[in-house]
Amino acid sequence: MTLVRLLDLIGIGVFAISGALAAGRKRLDLLGVFVLAAVTAIGGGTLRDLLLDRQPIFWLADPTYLGVIIAAVAITFAYVKWRRPPLASLLVADALGLALFSVAGAQIAEGAGLPAVSVVLLGTMTGVGGGVIRDVLSTEIPFVLRRGNLYASAVMFGIAVYLFLESVGLPRQQASLTGMGVIAALRLAAIRWELKLPVFEVDE
Amino acid sequence: MTLVRLLDLIGIGVFAISGALAAGRKRLDLLGVFVLAAVTAIGGGTLRDLLLDRQPIFWLADPTYLGVIIAAVAITFAYVKWRRPPLASLLVADALGLALFSVAGAQIAEGAGLPAVSVVLLGTMTGVGGGVIRDVLSTEIPFVLRRGNLYASAVMFGIAVYLFLESVGLPRQQASLTGMGVIAALRLAAIRWELKLPVFEVDE
Amino acid sequence: MTLVRLLDLIGIGVFAISGALAAGRKRLDLLGVFVLAAVTAIGGGTLRDLLLDRQPIFWLADPTYLGVIIAAVAITFAYVKWRRPPLASLLVADALGLALFSVAGAQIAEGAGLPAVSVVLLGTMTGVGGGVIRDVLSTEIPFVLRRGNLYASAVMFGIAVYLFLESVGLPRQQASLTGMGVIAALRLAAIRWELKLPVFEVDE
Repeated sequence: MTLVRLLDLIGIGVFAISGALAAGRKRLDLLGVFVLAAVTAIGGGTLRDLLLDRQPIFWLADPTYLGVIIAAVAITFAYVKWRRPPLASLLVADALGLALFSVAGAQIAEGAGLPAVSVVLLGTMTGVGGGVIRDVLSTEIPFVLRRGNLYASAVMFGIAVYLFLESVGLPRQQASLTGMGVIAALRLAAIRWELKLPVFEVDE
Repeated sequence: MTLVRLLDLIGIGVFAISGALAAGRKRLDLLGVFVLAAVTAIGGGTLRDLLLDRQPIFWLADPTYLGVIIAAVAITFAYVKWRRPPLASLLVADALGLALFSVAGAQIAEGAGLPAVSVVLLGTMTGVGGGVIRDVLSTEIPFVLRRGNLYASAVMFGIAVYLFLESVGLPRQQASLTGMGVIAALRLAAIRWELKLPVFEVDE
Repeated sequence: MTLVRLLDLIGIGVFAISGALAAGRKRLDLLGVFVLAAVTAIGGGTLRDLLLDRQPIFWLADPTYLGVIIAAVAITFAYVKWRRPPLASLLVADALGLALFSVAGAQIAEGAGLPAVSVVLLGTMTGVGGGVIRDVLSTEIPFVLRRGNLYASAVMFGIAVYLFLESVGLPRQQASLTGMGVIAALRLAAIRWELKLPVFEVDE
């Protein structure tokens, strides 16, 4: 198994755990928890594959992804029976998964020959799309839209950094690692110091 | 018209009626009712066709489906003017439609050469997807996610039974009829005895 | 730039502004406003392209669309800093954008050789789909479903008029302009005289 593949599966697992924990606050049953965990983990990549017409959708032909999600949900169930969930560690893991998925999604969009603004948007969708669908299914205003969360904006900025570095001639691997580092660092800083974006309001 | 085709259209009609009745509780206008009825009836199959890249989407090229939905909505309108909706009979019809659509969706996923876990998930999406989209549009937490409804889990179990029987050599038709029977029986039993799945909760 | 292209981009801009203003009532941050504006502007056409398997999705390969959306959001931000949004003019612009997108969407569906009922539905989705996704993300029951709004029904009627005129031999351009006129006129009349559709209700 390559390092990229391993990171990919870890990202899926982390996103599934965060989805399962979010579901746990909703008092759903076992299956509802699995569905929200799966949607969080694979929703963004599914949206990317649909929009780019990539076939087959990444998780359909490879049972490993759903296997990892099922395992992640089972571990979460067992763990929270005995202990409080380690929310701080999960936020860190989520920041890493987000960085990885977003830049990987951007690279796939780049490979399809899309203009930079579409690459940024598709990469961002890949990273945050699963959480958006999870929140919609839970009838919550998506986390990424709620005021002041430096989340999708951190992703967009990191992908832009990646594209910029690549365009000035940096090798792809270094550019993408830097982009991922920017995303993860911004997310961790946002959690640590509660960084926020300005709010937009209309008086009527 | 073959039997499968007839059952397919009956399933569409039943799902459309259940969607129209759900919409009736929301005080929407005529068009809103039609939209929710259509989404309930064709949403799951549309999701399946999008994910599998089947073209054309099943209802797009064949006007019969939308015709059946329009007729079902009209009948529902006329009926509830004069009488209370026969909810008990509809739950039974819904159980049969669910069994039919789910196993048919699973067979299509099988035909695309997908691994078993994806077949189960795509079959389940085909059966319950329309109701999920309907609930999202009505800003309700989807019925299939709400605690304790033995609905999607009944579908998953039935598809698993179908795949198992087929893998041990049972002819496809018998295996699929058994799978459908399991789904319908579980749903009817769940309604009759209020069977529930355990709830998962996280303390924080 | 052709007239059709210009109208198309104006429609995108108007829809983006209406999405940004709707977001302004939700107290989202800058990025949330951009996302809702973008979803309102390109959601319907994206749904149409996905269902028809048109590749690439119209906005992915052409950065102009996202550029127009970004500009429209920036203008909205700057404008509402100083003045109240001109809601009356925006409703008129929205009616024109809706007329244009719906009939254009119907023509694309026609070009794919679909039956009339699917053409009407796909054209309607193209026109109203973006607003539906925006409302779902804002956890509101979609505007087009809420009781008594003559919105999607005006679209359906206008597309039907277009198809009818074309079927009796009117040249395509005249038929489509008439269809658009019907949609815009119905919308403006509905706003002016508060026309409504009857409500459907179920007693249980």
